[in-house]
Amino acid sequence: MKKIVFIRHGESQYNLENRFTGWIDVDLTDDGYAEARKAGAILKKHGIGFDVAHTSVLKRAIRTLWIMLHEMDLVWIPVYKSWKLNERHYGRLQGLNKDEITEKFGEEQVTEWRRSADVRPPAVTDDAHQKDRDDPKYASVSDEDLPMTESLIDTEKRALQYWKDEIVPCLRENERVILSAHGNTLRALVKYLDGIPDDGVAGLNIPNGIPLVYELDDDLTPLRHYYLGEEGEMEHKDIPQHIHEDDHWIG
Amino acid sequence: MKKIVFIRHGESQYNLENRFTGWIDVDLTDDGYAEARKAGAILKKHGIGFDVAHTSVLKRAIRTLWIMLHEMDLVWIPVYKSWKLNERHYGRLQGLNKDEITEKFGEEQVTEWRRSADVRPPAVTDDAHQKDRDDPKYASVSDEDLPMTESLIDTEKRALQYWKDEIVPCLRENERVILSAHGNTLRALVKYLDGIPDDGVAGLNIPNGIPLVYELDDDLTPLRHYYLGEEGEMEHKDIPQHIHEDDHWIG
Repeated sequence: MKKIVFIRHGESQYNLENRFTGWIDVDLTDDGYAEARKAGAILKKHGIGFDVAHTSVLKRAIRTLWIMLHEMDLVWIPVYKSWKLNERHYGRLQGLNKDEITEKFGEEQVTEWRRSADVRPPAVTDDAHQKDRDDPKYASVSDEDLPMTESLIDTEKRALQYWKDEIVPCLRENERVILSAHGNTLRALVKYLDGIPDDGVAGLNIPNGIPLVYELDDDLTPLRHYYLGEEGEMEHKDIPQHIHEDDHWIG
Repeated sequence: MKKIVFIRHGESQYNLENRFTGWIDVDLTDDGYAEARKAGAILKKHGIGFDVAHTSVLKRAIRTLWIMLHEMDLVWIPVYKSWKLNERHYGRLQGLNKDEITEKFGEEQVTEWRRSADVRPPAVTDDAHQKDRDDPKYASVSDEDLPMTESLIDTEKRALQYWKDEIVPCLRENERVILSAHGNTLRALVKYLDGIPDDGVAGLNIPNGIPLVYELDDDLTPLRHYYLGEEGEMEHKDIPQHIHEDDHWIG
């Protein structure tokens, strides 16, 4: 049996302020730090170990992972970082809160963005894009690939590409994988693994800081999955949601 | 001009207790944590950035690096970890303090270990060796390579092998490298870079937690080096030594 554990980063400064984060590289809050420690302690308590780790290049995911690895006494395992696991690029919505967005773009437009898988928010300004282009984090990303905004489907595509190119080979080698990422990239992977159709993901909201364990057979077909709490396996409905229900739209 | 910064891990629990550490995987003390933060802040203040990081697989070196990268806002850079950068394996001396060693092995023997580059302390017991053999950190190390004890020269050889195989290619690509390691592996690299003979390293003691900057020409010949403090470049003699002078023997 093969195993991969998904972890959505702990609470970030923008989660706290209810702002669209996307590629803005905000750090964990103190609560987010505590969530990561707890997630690591839970995995250790339940005897779940890892051979390799993958994460985005955003610090809220990297630090969540590092804090967990420290807690599990696994700081020595290889850690691979890729922009393809980054949160969805929210274009010009990044940094704004929900009220500001409704005021700026109108209720109708906001509803369309929330309902559609293939609609992109307005692209960032050229200045903001140039800032990403000049960021050494993204130096290896081609001009063509570097987004100015993304639809849900755009984000899904790159996350699945990373899955196929980088995660599948680890699992085939029977390596136990931990993957630290974001609401939209994790939902893309779960949607793919469980074969959930586009219109079935509205309620699929992965909570921050709770390990989500997938067990797979030799063909990498999921056998079962569960969230892990201090007392053991948990169902999604039993997880306290400290971010409101539609936060997969916030990111 | 090419650049590499060496950092010896911050104070560990065994440094504090004046025990031989070697491959025993002790963590940083609170002071060690603070040293790492300060080292990162100093590099950031002086505008020194990095493209890639290398470290041993021991947590005192990894955590020193991670704390520094966080301080420099560089958690996203690739980090490579290898046992070849580990501290010298001190065999049966590991875990003992100086008094215990003198009592157990006698003054004369201790002096020989301190003076000789090619003498190995007594090997660890089979049980202790089996513990290393079963440690997943060392699963990829061949039986032949996995030490039960090492002379200074043994340690030098593997550190230089890593330099040639992994660090040189980075420098040739003009990547700015940070390397977090230990007293004996760092001294081996410095000795090699500066062409210091075996009998010239007695006083070559790299302090914990102070960035040591090497500037190299295109052939990787050192042009100059300096320690970096808050106020800028420092000479070795100006660095407060919080571990006694002969601690390169302690590790």
